[in-house]
Amino acid sequence: MRFHAQTQYVLHAMSKTAILPIDVQFGDCDPAGIVFFPNYSRWMDAASHHFFVSCGLPPWRAIESLPGCVGAPLLEIHTRFHTSVTYGERIEIHTRVEEWRGKVFIQQHRVTRGDTLICEGRETRALCLRGSDGRIKAVPVPDFVIAACTQRADASTDKELP
Amino acid sequence: MRFHAQTQYVLHAMSKTAILPIDVQFGDCDPAGIVFFPNYSRWMDAASHHFFVSCGLPPWRAIESLPGCVGAPLLEIHTRFHTSVTYGERIEIHTRVEEWRGKVFIQQHRVTRGDTLICEGRETRALCLRGSDGRIKAVPVPDFVIAACTQRADASTDKELP
Amino acid sequence: MRFHAQTQYVLHAMSKTAILPIDVQFGDCDPAGIVFFPNYSRWMDAASHHFFVSCGLPPWRAIESLPGCVGAPLLEIHTRFHTSVTYGERIEIHTRVEEWRGKVFIQQHRVTRGDTLICEGRETRALCLRGSDGRIKAVPVPDFVIAACTQRADASTDKELP
Amino acid sequence: MRFHAQTQYVLHAMSKTAILPIDVQFGDCDPAGIVFFPNYSRWMDAASHHFFVSCGLPPWRAIESLPGCVGAPLLEIHTRFHTSVTYGERIEIHTRVEEWRGKVFIQQHRVTRGDTLICEGRETRALCLRGSDGRIKAVPVPDFVIAACTQRADASTDKELP
Repeated sequence: MRFHAQTQYVLHAMSKTAILPIDVQFGDCDPAGIVFFPNYSRWMDAASHHFFVSCGLPPWRAIESLPGCVGAPLLEIHTRFHTSVTYGERIEIHTRVEEWRGKVFIQQHRVTRGDTLICEGRETRALCLRGSDGRIKAVPVPDFVIAACTQRADASTDKELP
Repeated sequence: MRFHAQTQYVLHAMSKTAILPIDVQFGDCDPAGIVFFPNYSRWMDAASHHFFVSCGLPPWRAIESLPGCVGAPLLEIHTRFHTSVTYGERIEIHTRVEEWRGKVFIQQHRVTRGDTLICEGRETRALCLRGSDGRIKAVPVPDFVIAACTQRADASTDKELP
Repeated sequence: MRFHAQTQYVLHAMSKTAILPIDVQFGDCDPAGIVFFPNYSRWMDAASHHFFVSCGLPPWRAIESLPGCVGAPLLEIHTRFHTSVTYGERIEIHTRVEEWRGKVFIQQHRVTRGDTLICEGRETRALCLRGSDGRIKAVPVPDFVIAACTQRADASTDKELP
Repeated sequence: MRFHAQTQYVLHAMSKTAILPIDVQFGDCDPAGIVFFPNYSRWMDAASHHFFVSCGLPPWRAIESLPGCVGAPLLEIHTRFHTSVTYGERIEIHTRVEEWRGKVFIQQHRVTRGDTLICEGRETRALCLRGSDGRIKAVPVPDFVIAACTQRADASTDKELP
């Protein structure tokens, strides 16, 4: 148990972090004047794609060594909302991979406005290919993907959340 | 000129009308408490699909006599907004084909709440196939599509807008 | 601990269930041809409102005995996705209150297509009023709200999930 | 008639232009793999707000000399679509005021990808206040708003569309 927690921590520390800024629009907000929460899911999905592109990877469907790749569909999302945001404000989504777990990985998205944590989400995704029989199945995430998303030990200047 | 106008009128009168009800949700509304207008475009697109299905046609991509059909993408939209709607209200979208014009057709959507006209939109669409060279091109709307969307002369009981 | 679990179960069993049907549209789907998942959050929010209205309650902001009520904003969402849905399909959202916990309650949404479970979400919400000082604070959910959402012991014919 | 056209041209030439870049996301696209068109309306609304803020004006509701201002709701939209866009692409929305017409003004939005014109929209909006009787009514656009949106004659370095 304790070992597992340590492993998680180490992987967590090693992931690169990508930051996606969002300018919240009038139309993103509901009659209470605050962001309608499904928009956070929309932005986290954008941040998930943005993370991998920022790590230098092609879009999932364009990875030649993964023929038939359909992407990394969601298995599970979990989001905690701490405070609200309104239009005219800028937020940032800080995205990293929290854990690689075989065919599955967990992305963490921290949404901030300045120093304030707005909400925090975790997405569990599986890397999926369409086989020659037309069926979609999850496959282990290849090492080159994990390597691209991981900071080198000496990369002390990489962007990091405080 | 005058002849053209008459033709238009006749075609207009002959189109079937399909009605799509929409229950306006909290999340469809903006900080002013009224429907955020891009939702009307979203609903009109749904109403366009709903119209053809209501006329007994398969979805565009499933029409066997139109191999490679990619649907009827939009060329132009034009909407006039008369009054606003808020959540908890039910609206209806009354959709017909106003004009068949070769490869192009014009759909009219009248959005109503009870007897009140909320907004009125026109969409110009082209029926498109993907050819064997991979390119998309517009094709004339086949007669069987037009026939399916047209009321028979004796169909006096078909649903009609007042 | 055991007592708490029992209480949960009893409350769970006693909640009314409201069913919101959704016809999935072309525009709800992404380039993979399946529902873009933030739409499930949007529909679950609609289902949350629909549940309370179906239980005979006014909209949150119109409850006279809760002056200044701003509704029941989300604290947390958790959704597990089991299989995908495409356009032209009808799904249903089966919504109940799983637990009342003072100022907080948990709504469960089971999204089904026929007998297939598509996804299952839990929303944690807090009932909030705006005080005379302009600040928003959570308040205990009043008994009349809980009563309205609860099946009478003899209401054996109420709609229930199988 | 001719005079009117000239006036329009002059006003057109004098408006500032604001440019809003948009990175098109996977979730903005439909099963055909291209932007679902209501998103263009959403982005044009954002571009309308962005234009006025770029001109140095406060948000509509915060303009002190316009007490009760509820913004500039849409009366009419008209968009022509020329070609499609997919995810991973960056587009820009070039926004200006094409005409000031008393209580009404027309905004033009040109959506481009590099040198390619994707679509072009016109929004007719009315500046509206909520009166002391609670009713909303259109009012003439004040001179200071028009002045803020207009290029000075000597401002030859202002950003302009080619």
